[in-house]
Amino acid sequence: MYPGEIRDPNWEKSAREIFQAQGLMAYLGIELVSIKPGFVVLAVPYRPELSQQAGFFHGGVMATLVDNSGGIAAGTLKAADQDVLAAEFKINILRPGIGERLVAEAQVVRPGRTLTVARMDVFAEKDGKRTLCAIGQGTYAYVDRS
Amino acid sequence: MYPGEIRDPNWEKSAREIFQAQGLMAYLGIELVSIKPGFVVLAVPYRPELSQQAGFFHGGVMATLVDNSGGIAAGTLKAADQDVLAAEFKINILRPGIGERLVAEAQVVRPGRTLTVARMDVFAEKDGKRTLCAIGQGTYAYVDRS
Amino acid sequence: MYPGEIRDPNWEKSAREIFQAQGLMAYLGIELVSIKPGFVVLAVPYRPELSQQAGFFHGGVMATLVDNSGGIAAGTLKAADQDVLAAEFKINILRPGIGERLVAEAQVVRPGRTLTVARMDVFAEKDGKRTLCAIGQGTYAYVDRS
Amino acid sequence: MYPGEIRDPNWEKSAREIFQAQGLMAYLGIELVSIKPGFVVLAVPYRPELSQQAGFFHGGVMATLVDNSGGIAAGTLKAADQDVLAAEFKINILRPGIGERLVAEAQVVRPGRTLTVARMDVFAEKDGKRTLCAIGQGTYAYVDRS
Repeated sequence: MYPGEIRDPNWEKSAREIFQAQGLMAYLGIELVSIKPGFVVLAVPYRPELSQQAGFFHGGVMATLVDNSGGIAAGTLKAADQDVLAAEFKINILRPGIGERLVAEAQVVRPGRTLTVARMDVFAEKDGKRTLCAIGQGTYAYVDRS
Repeated sequence: MYPGEIRDPNWEKSAREIFQAQGLMAYLGIELVSIKPGFVVLAVPYRPELSQQAGFFHGGVMATLVDNSGGIAAGTLKAADQDVLAAEFKINILRPGIGERLVAEAQVVRPGRTLTVARMDVFAEKDGKRTLCAIGQGTYAYVDRS
Repeated sequence: MYPGEIRDPNWEKSAREIFQAQGLMAYLGIELVSIKPGFVVLAVPYRPELSQQAGFFHGGVMATLVDNSGGIAAGTLKAADQDVLAAEFKINILRPGIGERLVAEAQVVRPGRTLTVARMDVFAEKDGKRTLCAIGQGTYAYVDRS
Repeated sequence: MYPGEIRDPNWEKSAREIFQAQGLMAYLGIELVSIKPGFVVLAVPYRPELSQQAGFFHGGVMATLVDNSGGIAAGTLKAADQDVLAAEFKINILRPGIGERLVAEAQVVRPGRTLTVARMDVFAEKDGKRTLCAIGQGTYAYVDRS
């Protein structure tokens, strides 16, 4: 998959700083596992604090992973003086999020000057086996920093 | 808006129990403000732990509110021996979530036997003023409890 | 609903011209019923050429109504030297489209400088009765005409 | 990609019959190019009757391809006595649909007993070159035939 043009030579540092500056990531325990131009992997270990009514990962955690893996992936392709914001996304929850860890992979499919579109996969890891439990698709906007 | 047929005489107790059983709600500080058949209001006070990179409410928190307000609203119309799960939803983030509190309203627009569809509005409250900051639309599935 | 600022004094003529220039509208028989700043109504009479396998209106016709009612509604708020394009939308089909006519209403909920978000309702009319059969939500982009 | 269990030995005949019975497909000139369990390719040649205001393929045609390629792909995995209906889908339009032909590929990613989820890609073909112009994601419901 063509990742799009790199416009900021410090793209990795900049994308990591955005991730670090998000209080929600540390609070939920979401880790930035891997980052390449147009591609990002996030993961979060299970805790009861992240659960829905049956004790599995809550859909809101899956949605946060979809939202933010796409946002950071889009962020790797922004210009140096821009910020990246989620404009919209959609998630289909395919199966309950059962396991020790959720892992989200985001791949930019359409890098743009102002709008970038990405696709996301969320996997649940249990006993060393990965199961696709949610898929997403979203639009991210680059906005000039004032 | 016609809310749909009530199928469980204990609908309110049952829907509140689902909300209470979700570890994520307490962890994020999300409160169940109001519940009627087919209509639910959730709210969450601001904390830095809920922030994105600019310090505002993270899109993941808005998405969690969209997801779960719709799920609990759909849950008010389920049968007694069923659980309710999010099948999918979509969110458009209209403005940054700036303020003391986010409030989400979910309204069922199509109650069904197995699938129920709802629309959601998320408002940011700041200095006593409400601003619409996200809208959503989602599908919730009723599944028989084993 | 605040419709957003009018930026083109000839907004109605311009939006009607966009609609007229779309070959697909005439081919499907879609009519522009009503147009106000940020609000548009489209309608299409039933023909077997618009059907799915059970003989009802095809979901593709509902989706075209969602797409284009939102696009024309967003178009009423664009600047004179801009075009309007659909960036993305989502549709939930609530019921089969059974009847003599489909009617779509689009309401802008967030007018912007470059991105505008709208919500759409699609009704089926049968024997003088209106039934909500689909709902949608979409993002429209304003692009400068070259 | 695991295509899901085949439940109807006459799956191909049944899925082709659904496609043939849709008046909209013939009217728009959409052809069923290829069909496998859980995977379908549709295509439509360009005509001015399918255009938006700039003369390119209308987003409604892309959306119809997304909707129906996913529906037919889901239909290959239904039981013999079931029909398949679109519950919802989402489309991102990545680029204008410029060219001689649009081609849509749908891949089931989660086959289910009552709900099946698919991902869709829409390509524009121009001068022998394929460009990804839209992506989609949708949910299809199996309903028992009465």
